[in-house]
Amino acid sequence: MTRKINHIGIAVKSLETALPLYRDVFGMTFEGTEEVAEQKVRVAFLAIGESRIELLEPTSADSPVAKFLEKNGEGIHHLAYQVEDLERALEQLKADGVRLIDEKPRRGAHNSLIAFLHPKATGGVLTELCQAADH
Amino acid sequence: MTRKINHIGIAVKSLETALPLYRDVFGMTFEGTEEVAEQKVRVAFLAIGESRIELLEPTSADSPVAKFLEKNGEGIHHLAYQVEDLERALEQLKADGVRLIDEKPRRGAHNSLIAFLHPKATGGVLTELCQAADH
Repeated sequence: MTRKINHIGIAVKSLETALPLYRDVFGMTFEGTEEVAEQKVRVAFLAIGESRIELLEPTSADSPVAKFLEKNGEGIHHLAYQVEDLERALEQLKADGVRLIDEKPRRGAHNSLIAFLHPKATGGVLTELCQAADH
Repeated sequence: MTRKINHIGIAVKSLETALPLYRDVFGMTFEGTEEVAEQKVRVAFLAIGESRIELLEPTSADSPVAKFLEKNGEGIHHLAYQVEDLERALEQLKADGVRLIDEKPRRGAHNSLIAFLHPKATGGVLTELCQAADH
């Protein structure tokens, strides 16, 4: 079902403060930022191998990422795997009895389709499946 | 400096309980388990794309992973990037003023060389750099 690690989402208070480590020290390729209004975050994309690091900065106090930062401080927020066909993957997960947050695909960054699994089903790891826009 | 995501370490109470989701549902390639005596963990390796998921089960109550589970519950424990030359990467990090846990490379799973950065230097993300054994 899963093809590769698409990205790792890291919650940060400030993109400006977090970026230099990933871009300048680790030498990842900075691909720009995008505001994802639905999630109330500003995201910085950094390419590494076939995957990306996504730094997530909340744009509002009621953003899910703002709540995460309040509870846990900065750190890894979620882990996203790429799938070929998200609709089919969600059907299979439901058949396997895996609890989902999103029963249907919705729009994510870069016009991809995404869905989150329930952390109770994944041992506390907030897990996202995504299907690239070009599929 | 960093070439790819080498692996993501996930702390679990039991490999047997955690494995089916990654192997059977997500369809990752299970490559076996290894005991890393120094870290007091049993590790299950699952290949996904150019990376791996490493499930970490403590083998003793004083394992760092046992302490992590006590404090945080199950979840993502660390993130590991592959580098070409670990010794050189650590020199560069020191020159850049990045705080380290390991000043020198030490042995990890699969006979690799590894070093951990200090979470205070990486915004709360426990970050490992590793150099594959065949380099």
